[in-house]
Amino acid sequence: MISKNQIKYIRQLEMKKFRKREKCFVAEGPKVVGDLMKQYQPKAVFATDEWNQGDKIPVTEDELRRISFLQNPQQVLAIFPIPECDSDIPHDIHQLSLALDGIQDPGNLGTIIRIADWFGIDTIYCSEDTADAYNPKAVQATMGSLAHVHIIYTDLLRLFNSLPPSYPIYGTLLDGDAIYQQSLSREGIIVMGNEGNGISDAVRQRVNRRLLIPSFHQGDRAESLNVAIATAITCSEFRRRDTQ
Amino acid sequence: MISKNQIKYIRQLEMKKFRKREKCFVAEGPKVVGDLMKQYQPKAVFATDEWNQGDKIPVTEDELRRISFLQNPQQVLAIFPIPECDSDIPHDIHQLSLALDGIQDPGNLGTIIRIADWFGIDTIYCSEDTADAYNPKAVQATMGSLAHVHIIYTDLLRLFNSLPPSYPIYGTLLDGDAIYQQSLSREGIIVMGNEGNGISDAVRQRVNRRLLIPSFHQGDRAESLNVAIATAITCSEFRRRDTQ
Repeated sequence: MISKNQIKYIRQLEMKKFRKREKCFVAEGPKVVGDLMKQYQPKAVFATDEWNQGDKIPVTEDELRRISFLQNPQQVLAIFPIPECDSDIPHDIHQLSLALDGIQDPGNLGTIIRIADWFGIDTIYCSEDTADAYNPKAVQATMGSLAHVHIIYTDLLRLFNSLPPSYPIYGTLLDGDAIYQQSLSREGIIVMGNEGNGISDAVRQRVNRRLLIPSFHQGDRAESLNVAIATAITCSEFRRRDTQ
Repeated sequence: MISKNQIKYIRQLEMKKFRKREKCFVAEGPKVVGDLMKQYQPKAVFATDEWNQGDKIPVTEDELRRISFLQNPQQVLAIFPIPECDSDIPHDIHQLSLALDGIQDPGNLGTIIRIADWFGIDTIYCSEDTADAYNPKAVQATMGSLAHVHIIYTDLLRLFNSLPPSYPIYGTLLDGDAIYQQSLSREGIIVMGNEGNGISDAVRQRVNRRLLIPSFHQGDRAESLNVAIATAITCSEFRRRDTQ
């Protein structure tokens, strides 16, 4: 049984302002909730009889539908604390990280977090104007990978200033060099830009390794790749070099 | 000015049954409509004053909102004829093609069409139980690439039966060989499977080149890649070989 106040509270967690104040977020479904529970202690778990992986507030299918952000609610909805991420922790310069410069779509952001997890990238730096990783749509798109990747919202220029001189900062740009033939380092930061406008001017000036994903279509067309797709191809290229 | 009947007609085009009967589909926004208009003659174009690329039925912002399938309608909505695709045309064995085996999500399907376009793949074979490429969500996700890629709904087993013996049929499978080290041919069919279940048993038996996209995360976790992401990485690997 779920109270009206609980329903209201959960629904409000759709809003970033509210999530920020309450320092918690919503995750749904056995896979996503299960993965997060291995890392974080949930504040509350609302689940139908089908789900039996721990303490829960039992709800009916109908009650779950009323609190869920999904079109097809899946057994369980849980509230987790937003992990504290100290943006002052120095960047581990011996690893590969991602920096997102103004990604707007929560689905793209969640998909990128899932890609990072697959390719063993532990840290994603997000510019302050990047979508919120704890938005319900982003959380679902991560498919649980939010439990394995550190998300740090920070000023990207300040981050770059903290790095050694000539530390590799990669970006995919229209005037970059075809990624397939480039030598790619095992350490560095890969910047991915906004869906419509790409990497912002100020950040672009700090990119010192300019990459391009070449297209193979015929004719002079203005096609583009979705940013999550571009991220996947880029990360795949970096990791391929490690296997050879 | 738009009539009630027009509004009703357009809204009904959200349904596959209705699209099939009327042999037409809806596309929206200057980029998608513009790209399709270069290939296909629209049956009707509804557009606000902002849009001036041809004959149109003028509509107000409010009217556009009433017919649009988008959260944020963009200037123009057009109705196009569904291109006739004869599934009996023999497969061009000298090119690389995709075969989709039960892709369910229209957004994934549209994204895959966009990826195919980028990588110069002209033909996508879809199993009959794959989502409809003319679903409004799929059309939007293609970002206009629907104008450049042939979509053929067919029985995949029948397609495979029409091919020369030992013609390369690639699939990404959990027991495949890491794609980065495989030799990949310039011709062949790449099969991508259903979001939850992968490639169906019957189709899997016909895959004669088994690939795997290796993961690089630590620990024994059951992570996965979204099917559109896996398609992008796979196509990128095939085309990379052409550039070296």
